[in-house]
Amino acid sequence: MSTFGERVRAAIAAHGRLCVGIDPHETLLHDWGLPVDASGVREFGLRTVDAAASRVGIVKPQVSFFERFGSAGFAALEGVMAAARAAGLIVIADAKRGDIGTTMDAYADAWLTPGAPLEADALTANPYLGVGTLTHAFDLAEAHGKGVLVLAATSNPDAFTAQRALLSDGATVSAGIIAEVSARNAQRTPPGEWAALGFVVGATVDWHEAGLSVPVPSAPILAPGFGHQGAAPADLVRYGTAAATVVASESRSILSAGPDHLAARIAERASLYRG
Amino acid sequence: MSTFGERVRAAIAAHGRLCVGIDPHETLLHDWGLPVDASGVREFGLRTVDAAASRVGIVKPQVSFFERFGSAGFAALEGVMAAARAAGLIVIADAKRGDIGTTMDAYADAWLTPGAPLEADALTANPYLGVGTLTHAFDLAEAHGKGVLVLAATSNPDAFTAQRALLSDGATVSAGIIAEVSARNAQRTPPGEWAALGFVVGATVDWHEAGLSVPVPSAPILAPGFGHQGAAPADLVRYGTAAATVVASESRSILSAGPDHLAARIAERASLYRG
Repeated sequence: MSTFGERVRAAIAAHGRLCVGIDPHETLLHDWGLPVDASGVREFGLRTVDAAASRVGIVKPQVSFFERFGSAGFAALEGVMAAARAAGLIVIADAKRGDIGTTMDAYADAWLTPGAPLEADALTANPYLGVGTLTHAFDLAEAHGKGVLVLAATSNPDAFTAQRALLSDGATVSAGIIAEVSARNAQRTPPGEWAALGFVVGATVDWHEAGLSVPVPSAPILAPGFGHQGAAPADLVRYGTAAATVVASESRSILSAGPDHLAARIAERASLYRG
Repeated sequence: MSTFGERVRAAIAAHGRLCVGIDPHETLLHDWGLPVDASGVREFGLRTVDAAASRVGIVKPQVSFFERFGSAGFAALEGVMAAARAAGLIVIADAKRGDIGTTMDAYADAWLTPGAPLEADALTANPYLGVGTLTHAFDLAEAHGKGVLVLAATSNPDAFTAQRALLSDGATVSAGIIAEVSARNAQRTPPGEWAALGFVVGATVDWHEAGLSVPVPSAPILAPGFGHQGAAPADLVRYGTAAATVVASESRSILSAGPDHLAARIAERASLYRG
């Protein structure tokens, strides 16, 4: 079975680096003429999947915008993710889950078990409680060709308290987390392949200031913050030698096109992230 | 309207410090003779609420064990939380959510909005992306007599990477987070009252080693790790001057009694945390 990284590599080769964020924010639901409820987020998600299919390789539903509507919102999310996977899209569930022991294991089971109602191709995970707490998620991902994308560095200054604090060896927390996950990738990834485990590193993060001199060969990197949030395709150079494995996520810049112009907007934006 | 802290204070005065964790782990579902599906976790949760009502003041459903079953699991959780609140129990949704901007805002809306399907009395939150990202959650909590419990320090050594890294002033990340939240509490809490915002600090955390010399007057503290996980009521002294506001959470030690002996076990354990 291909690693998640190899699946991402194939998707980039076929469609380019753009990942379409499925973020049914209340303002966008209004703009699209959809109700602000579970039926609205379902319709929003399904239309976005339709427009994304065959134009990009990867979509990223933002779980909170579905969770807001409780169980009905999760039922909508299940429908949207199933439609996306049926259309051949790689689905990154942006849930940023993190916990300890069997509690974290249950989150991993929820999102990374084949056949589970919320099955995704990859899950974003929060390492504040320790990279070791994610072991079961890593195991599931590696066993089933799925991925875990560990939050490493975000660009909001609020986050610097935790992410740029220093470990006893002088590395930043972000760098320490990348090193821990990379050590596992190094043991488990066939030579020349892209790995199952990767990172979330915001598009406008200054890698030098964040202490990220760590090389991360072949680890898939989810880069939120492109488009409306301020980064442009030229900013991919910020990722240095890691740029090869970056998936660039845009949401508002695409979704603001509205349902009737969505496919054209996706095609236009996707073309900027090819080659 | 009373702050969440004042509601906790009243619950402790009436029933003592014990909080019953509602953790429908697969092993426990088997032991209780319940199916490992959404109907099983619903039944498990409702029976635990019945046994807890009038014997303790606070329950803490562990969201991951419901999330595992997707939208059907969340429907079960909605039923369990509604039953608990109707029985007069304070419900702490242990979801450990954390994200940025409007994404975090949507999580706050999901759990802290009056009338929302997943309405709880308090939400546990992950500060890895910055305490500032939790502002809307804090606003909602303060406006509606609800609480936010920010993950400050856990006892698993895995977590030390992020939590015990050092800030530029020499404080640990855990201490820095407590200081940021406490500054807000100091501004917003009426004199003499317990605050809306509090912390999660594991029962077996060594406060000195974790750098937690910070006083946290009047902030409610959720302390997981009592009972089966190793801490005993005598360990409340670890919290020093903060011990007055601690809610001690036990789950496995209680739930392992099975459905027929649950009420008696809760009564027995609760008595250890009074006075």
